[in-house]
Amino acid sequence: MFTGLSAFPLTPMNEKGIKERELICLVEHLANAGVDSIGVLGSTGSYVYLSQEERARVAQLSVESAASVPVVVGIGALRTRDVLANAENAQKAGASGVLLAPVSYQKLTDNEVFDLYETVCRSLSVPLCVYDNPGTTHFEFSDELHGRIAQLSQVHSIKIPPVADEVEVARARVERLRKLIPDGVTIGISGDAVAGVGLRAGCDAWYSVFGGLFPRQALAITGAAQKGDMQLIQTLSEALEPLWALYRDYGGSLRVAATLAEITGKASQPCLPQPLKTLQGDDRKRVEHVLEQLGLA
Amino acid sequence: MFTGLSAFPLTPMNEKGIKERELICLVEHLANAGVDSIGVLGSTGSYVYLSQEERARVAQLSVESAASVPVVVGIGALRTRDVLANAENAQKAGASGVLLAPVSYQKLTDNEVFDLYETVCRSLSVPLCVYDNPGTTHFEFSDELHGRIAQLSQVHSIKIPPVADEVEVARARVERLRKLIPDGVTIGISGDAVAGVGLRAGCDAWYSVFGGLFPRQALAITGAAQKGDMQLIQTLSEALEPLWALYRDYGGSLRVAATLAEITGKASQPCLPQPLKTLQGDDRKRVEHVLEQLGLA
Repeated sequence: MFTGLSAFPLTPMNEKGIKERELICLVEHLANAGVDSIGVLGSTGSYVYLSQEERARVAQLSVESAASVPVVVGIGALRTRDVLANAENAQKAGASGVLLAPVSYQKLTDNEVFDLYETVCRSLSVPLCVYDNPGTTHFEFSDELHGRIAQLSQVHSIKIPPVADEVEVARARVERLRKLIPDGVTIGISGDAVAGVGLRAGCDAWYSVFGGLFPRQALAITGAAQKGDMQLIQTLSEALEPLWALYRDYGGSLRVAATLAEITGKASQPCLPQPLKTLQGDDRKRVEHVLEQLGLA
Repeated sequence: MFTGLSAFPLTPMNEKGIKERELICLVEHLANAGVDSIGVLGSTGSYVYLSQEERARVAQLSVESAASVPVVVGIGALRTRDVLANAENAQKAGASGVLLAPVSYQKLTDNEVFDLYETVCRSLSVPLCVYDNPGTTHFEFSDELHGRIAQLSQVHSIKIPPVADEVEVARARVERLRKLIPDGVTIGISGDAVAGVGLRAGCDAWYSVFGGLFPRQALAITGAAQKGDMQLIQTLSEALEPLWALYRDYGGSLRVAATLAEITGKASQPCLPQPLKTLQGDDRKRVEHVLEQLGLA
């Protein structure tokens, strides 16, 4: 489950609630494309902006819509109490795994984060993926802490943040981490723009925002990785550079992905939780242009 | 209301809920001491860790316990929808004002933050204090954005993050901001360690964690400021240096304040929301020592 392409769909919503029909279509599209897993309620799924009840509903609808494809559900929250409730709801919904980031408001210590994972793992009957995303959680994992947490038997994967552009530097980073974690715990790359580099550097999985909208194109890249075709990974990934440039210029992947979903009719406007907004005006035109340029329209 | 000492109490809690009796005692203690306002559900009050219902209850209990002292209630949340609900609940509870930080998970743009304040101000019948706390919100206000937001008629104060140690540098910063905001919008300093410098640099208020536990000692400092006794502010504030050193060494004020509350019997252990923990072992002994050294025990 924690190898190959893990596709992360948006959770289309407005201020009243989740757009259930659109969510179902997004998940069905991923399942039909044959992704290896579907990661709902990741950062792309705006998990932290939803109520516990809404999150339980997203988990339930996603599992129902994913056919035989495993669904991994994000359970992160500021408070351990809420993480435990989300974990229980995800498991009740039939999630095959859970994803947990150390979401913070007050900066967390290493021991607090370790205790969080230990407490949550004790309550789990499905595997957990550690979600390392300092850009949103503002928590920096040391490799040593990853090593400690990965000893917990429920931990089956680590979703690492973007690696260096340089493949040899990225490989050294992946290998350093690999030495500290048990065999069988996979390492997956997030940060679409360097996913190609991450896969060439030995990552087992791509936790992918791009794959949540364009699963076939993303599967071509993970397929190349599974065949060991380094050149093809690089070619396919670098061809998407105009899209990665949008991520860089618009504060990350979320607003770009949500704008793409609106443009392609996968989500109706608005689809992000306020105060977040999709791109408008000239910025939106630029996204439309890239979409056509890349033949993704 | 947004001048002098605004004291920020903890919200004592465990994993089951709020410790109402302890909260009431904290608020009564502040009211009896004669603070100028009480800021509940600030960062020190762990607002983001509580449910909407718990926050409404804290607001209600605080207003009931504060006698004639104005209560300012923190209404920040990741989502505009939830901020609006918190604002309504705070007003229903009888809050005299509200405090709003641009809490983020996805990094916010200036326009998103402006729209948030504009939307919330439209729904308010009480004054609002803009809460600028980049250490927890990870949003950096420009002075220009402060200027735009401060034009909204409900905005009556700005709670600024720590200023430079050097009083002339701090004064220049306060004066730069002052030029961009309407007359009558006050500027308050947070960051206890530099509050003395902030007051000497012309801040109108001290938004104080220390004052939430030791209001009389904090009132001595704001009293000196109101009399223009710069030397006394400096002397009193610098005398507390061993406490400020604890803040620096333990990742900010919250864990130290919560540990102090436990040690002095103002809160029973545990009092912070998991995964946050108060200081234990040698770290706790160090806090006890400082408490005795400063005569605060």
